[in-house]
Amino acid sequence: MERKSFGNMQCPIARTLERVGEWWSILILRDAFHGLTRFDQFQKSLDIAPNMLTRRLNSLVESGLLERRQYSQRPPRHEYLLTDLGRDFRPILILLTTWGNKHFAPEGLSVLLVDATTGQAAEPLMIDGKSGKPLTSPDFTFVAGPQAGEAVIKRINFARERGVGAANDAVPTAIPKVKKGVRAAKSDKKNIDEHV
Amino acid sequence: MERKSFGNMQCPIARTLERVGEWWSILILRDAFHGLTRFDQFQKSLDIAPNMLTRRLNSLVESGLLERRQYSQRPPRHEYLLTDLGRDFRPILILLTTWGNKHFAPEGLSVLLVDATTGQAAEPLMIDGKSGKPLTSPDFTFVAGPQAGEAVIKRINFARERGVGAANDAVPTAIPKVKKGVRAAKSDKKNIDEHV
Repeated sequence: MERKSFGNMQCPIARTLERVGEWWSILILRDAFHGLTRFDQFQKSLDIAPNMLTRRLNSLVESGLLERRQYSQRPPRHEYLLTDLGRDFRPILILLTTWGNKHFAPEGLSVLLVDATTGQAAEPLMIDGKSGKPLTSPDFTFVAGPQAGEAVIKRINFARERGVGAANDAVPTAIPKVKKGVRAAKSDKKNIDEHV
Repeated sequence: MERKSFGNMQCPIARTLERVGEWWSILILRDAFHGLTRFDQFQKSLDIAPNMLTRRLNSLVESGLLERRQYSQRPPRHEYLLTDLGRDFRPILILLTTWGNKHFAPEGLSVLLVDATTGQAAEPLMIDGKSGKPLTSPDFTFVAGPQAGEAVIKRINFARERGVGAANDAVPTAIPKVKKGVRAAKSDKKNIDEHV
């Protein structure tokens, strides 16, 4: 079955999944954070078919999460290094680890995040950097941004009508800056999918 | 191509992806957080093929993230509601939103998270609930847990040898409690994949 492109959807989650939603990509990023850089290292770690690994590595390079660098001329050999954008993905991997440990590790933990200065297991908590409030607070709610299309506004309003996560009609007074055009796939610029 | 099962891998990330890694599943969860509950609502929002939607909803129910509840006898109609486990997935959706907004919204933001009491856009930050330190600090490092298999230990040691994220040889003195057997797929208990 042909996969639908999510990159055209006007939703930051869909666009993120378009770049790294494929499972192998996320495990490749995990291994890159563990220091793996070479094709054969990834292949051995993941037990992945070579053509699939090539495809996923190329896709991560194209999306700007990995950088391909030649480390040998003869024979020509390349390694794959995390870019700043790739490193910025680490919090998501930490949350996925936390969630998996919490719910799907019946036999006990195999991997965990610790504070190396104290040896204590970390307790990941998401807060608002401005107010220090945990983001699980019902105060936090999704609202339509300045560029929201009709479909997004409909979705947000649907939630608001049902009182899901929306405490009142507050609209954002401060919009975080977004680097225009940086790392954006060409497909983002055309044909915003209004079915979303 | 047949999909490899990730649920057998001894890695909390792989096990999470096994449950919700499929893209549609994550967008279905997004819509559930927006208050959508019914088949036709999800279908309209996602423009997804009905057989695919049925498959993904069943899979999310099986994994314990959604609960299927009959709301009409004649004709028989069901709705899909987030469980506690499903609601616990929200921080991951928030991070995916943040990341997508930061890197892949060249035309401006369509959706953002705000503090409804102030109208200010949230600045999601992951900290250690114990020490208050940001988890981006190099102090935090992944270590092998008490149930780590050979493959996991190898992967962690590989990272340590390369000085990736590991500040010293500290081992965890406090292991977070994991609910034994809760929500765990049967496949977790057998045949741990040592290729991971």
